Amino acid sequence: MGVGEVPEGWELRDGRLHRELHFRDFSEAWGFLSRVALVAERAGHHPDWSNSWNRVVIDLWSHDVGAVTERDVRLARLIDELLA
Amino acid sequence: MGVGEVPEGWELRDGRLHRELHFRDFSEAWGFLSRVALVAERAGHHPDWSNSWNRVVIDLWSHDVGAVTERDVRLARLIDELLA
Amino acid sequence: MGVGEVPEGWELRDGRLHRELHFRDFSEAWGFLSRVALVAERAGHHPDWSNSWNRVVIDLWSHDVGAVTERDVRLARLIDELLA
Amino acid sequence: MGVGEVPEGWELRDGRLHRELHFRDFSEAWGFLSRVALVAERAGHHPDWSNSWNRVVIDLWSHDVGAVTERDVRLARLIDELLA
Repeated sequence: MGVGEVPEGWELRDGRLHRELHFRDFSEAWGFLSRVALVAERAGHHPDWSNSWNRVVIDLWSHDVGAVTERDVRLARLIDELLA
Repeated sequence: MGVGEVPEGWELRDGRLHRELHFRDFSEAWGFLSRVALVAERAGHHPDWSNSWNRVVIDLWSHDVGAVTERDVRLARLIDELLA
Repeated sequence: MGVGEVPEGWELRDGRLHRELHFRDFSEAWGFLSRVALVAERAGHHPDWSNSWNRVVIDLWSHDVGAVTERDVRLARLIDELLA
Repeated sequence: MGVGEVPEGWELRDGRLHRELHFRDFSEAWGFLSRVALVAERAGHHPDWSNSWNRVVIDLWSHDVGAVTERDVRLARLIDELLA
């Protein structure tokens, strides 16, 4: 990546920082998504993400560069703080 | 109230079920509020609530009756489940 | 489908009711997603959906049946009301 | 105020920039609140606000100063953009 380590819990997949999460139900997943939205807006960098009931999939990459950059690693770490 | 016990953590104030909550920061408060919004919409019964940074104040009463009813006690308990 | 017409703006794709939406920015997309979350929770039926900045993709199907059912058509129509 | 004009639609009340808004229903109010949350988090400045069904009341002031500052006027204008 040239951007340091892949944060624990994440993997590089198809040129993106990828993480899958499971919550107890939609409510818990939605509470998490709502906090990630705040983090992303503050960072000025947004995830590609999907949700199905209690499942959340996040893919981070920098669309302008077409690759994973430091911005994605930083966003991944901010997201991880919500899970701590 | 004629509607059973005031749930633990709540008090009757000005004819409303009242609870004040403090979170770590706005993000944590917002994650909670986002889940309460879902609970309220599903219940078809909505809180009077306010937020200031990490602080949330909730007042439950039934506007149509002008008093606390079973609907409010039920909503209080659903909110409590989010805090468990 | 055996469930009536595919609502306008939606298409059947891979056995799901599929719709793609574009908004002005993440904020506008997120406002919409937040309202869909309420609709879904009230309906007790949730979308598969993804978001990338201003883009939202929604796929509706009934996981328990493995097909599109009336529940999905109803949810599609409730989502459409938010876009009206 | 020493901070320029009170933005149209707002008033000075109890030393705060105050605005009351009415929406069609809770869903529409919630969509708005969800967008204001993003704006506030990005600005690093958060409102005092309350909601009751379709009604939203916003009070802006700078807690650290105990008065309305430029930060509040800026946040008011960002909120106004969501209403445009």
